[in-house]
Amino acid sequence: MNPDFLAWSGNLQVRIETALEHLLPDPRHAPQTLHAAMRHAALGGGKRVRPLLAFAAGEVAGADPARVEIAACAVELIHAYSLVHDDMPCMDNDMLRRGKPTCHVEYGEATALLAGDGLHSLAFELLSGHTLSDTPERQLDMVKLLASAAGSRGMAGGQAIDLASVGQTLTLPELEFMHIHKTGALIRAAVLLGAYCGAALDNTTLARLDRYAKCVGLAFQVVDDILDAEAPTATLGKTAGKDAQHNKPTYVTLMGSTRAKAFAAELHRDALDALAGFDSAQRLRELADFIVQRQF
Amino acid sequence: MNPDFLAWSGNLQVRIETALEHLLPDPRHAPQTLHAAMRHAALGGGKRVRPLLAFAAGEVAGADPARVEIAACAVELIHAYSLVHDDMPCMDNDMLRRGKPTCHVEYGEATALLAGDGLHSLAFELLSGHTLSDTPERQLDMVKLLASAAGSRGMAGGQAIDLASVGQTLTLPELEFMHIHKTGALIRAAVLLGAYCGAALDNTTLARLDRYAKCVGLAFQVVDDILDAEAPTATLGKTAGKDAQHNKPTYVTLMGSTRAKAFAAELHRDALDALAGFDSAQRLRELADFIVQRQF
Repeated sequence: MNPDFLAWSGNLQVRIETALEHLLPDPRHAPQTLHAAMRHAALGGGKRVRPLLAFAAGEVAGADPARVEIAACAVELIHAYSLVHDDMPCMDNDMLRRGKPTCHVEYGEATALLAGDGLHSLAFELLSGHTLSDTPERQLDMVKLLASAAGSRGMAGGQAIDLASVGQTLTLPELEFMHIHKTGALIRAAVLLGAYCGAALDNTTLARLDRYAKCVGLAFQVVDDILDAEAPTATLGKTAGKDAQHNKPTYVTLMGSTRAKAFAAELHRDALDALAGFDSAQRLRELADFIVQRQF
Repeated sequence: MNPDFLAWSGNLQVRIETALEHLLPDPRHAPQTLHAAMRHAALGGGKRVRPLLAFAAGEVAGADPARVEIAACAVELIHAYSLVHDDMPCMDNDMLRRGKPTCHVEYGEATALLAGDGLHSLAFELLSGHTLSDTPERQLDMVKLLASAAGSRGMAGGQAIDLASVGQTLTLPELEFMHIHKTGALIRAAVLLGAYCGAALDNTTLARLDRYAKCVGLAFQVVDDILDAEAPTATLGKTAGKDAQHNKPTYVTLMGSTRAKAFAAELHRDALDALAGFDSAQRLRELADFIVQRQF
């Protein structure tokens, strides 16, 4: 990756961590354990891909970074809550996340359940409690966008389809349907929310951003499947090989590693095509590169 | 209760059920099982106390009932999600709710977890996806109000305090602190959201509605504790005596049944005092009567 992109993304990762530190409830305030568990789940890393996408899309719309920061944190809190619930024993039963014990391992299942719920509500508190858009009407659209991306016709629905697919043979279209919901919906929301923080964009531009987001979201998942099959746990910071262990269909099990890599490259090209001629979309292009080329 | 109140509340209970039927995702659409579980959790009864409070407060502000209906459903979905998660094995491990098997008993824990999450997101989708207030700024305030009432400094926080209190001896102020969060925050949100659907009220009126809501919210819990200790399971539609069984502090264990009943009566009077001279608050007064006098 080019050094300028690495500096940009590194600075924003620090900025997001600092912002979340301030926006999450103080662990000295009651209920202390719940607040500590929420902070455990949301702080201390992760790639912050969704916030980076929000900032990069914000650049296309000339958005004030102070606004994008809040919207980006809201998306990241939804992501963090979904990881907490997804890691629980009744779901994936995972012990390791971002190199740390998962929330239920550290705080017990009941507190983890409530910590996920608390992060979920906090995302909407952020999105409604700050001025994030030029008009309140558009900000209500932002709330609706995030709520539907997170809900049963978005991310939570994708997790339900994922659950039902364990031990099943899926077709490629079925696998794609699952991922468009499970990870795609929130990645798409991150891009559009970043853009909504700035000047109103015409529908063609929004449609191109959306097409970019769909390609990048799916590429993210294909690469995740490749890494889960090939990278060691120490590099991933989460349990490697867990898809095979859970007998879950993945792009690697369905296509084989070589074709999965070719598919990721094709989605990468499609994402860049959607942005063709867009001068202000340099960071979005670099993020597409990063998402496909990452090793963790 | 007077027949006019019974007709009013009965009609609204039907109205809420019908509205939720339409607003919840169609169980024929994927992911079908998740959508069926969400409907199982949110449909088929309950007293709908929060929606009734929203409608009654809407009358004070001359609100369009079509708006209040959506806001009331949003509050009820938050309540329904909290029951699904609260009933799970890692929390209260309850098998019976509203006379039916709880969501995790019927659909398994993983689906119940996601159904709660889906209901939670849907509440914010409703609150942002319809015109509910005279200005979009006030509607954003409604989103923020519900999000903070549901979150770690509201309902979810109250549940965390409840968890931590199992087997502990609480003082009365500690028990009150728990309930102000666990049930009080959402009941307060129901009243204020109903009012926000109508004409802007002056701060004195809003403060009086809020005082009413706080008293009624606490009275609701005191009566719940009395019923849990004294009413049979068949009447409650949920497992009776579970507080004692879970070794949870309640108003009955702390004050004894006689003093708890006197405290409920005192809160009832305080709630009515807050509305003194308010002609348009007749339904709120009747709801206070209903909440204190109910047998289930």
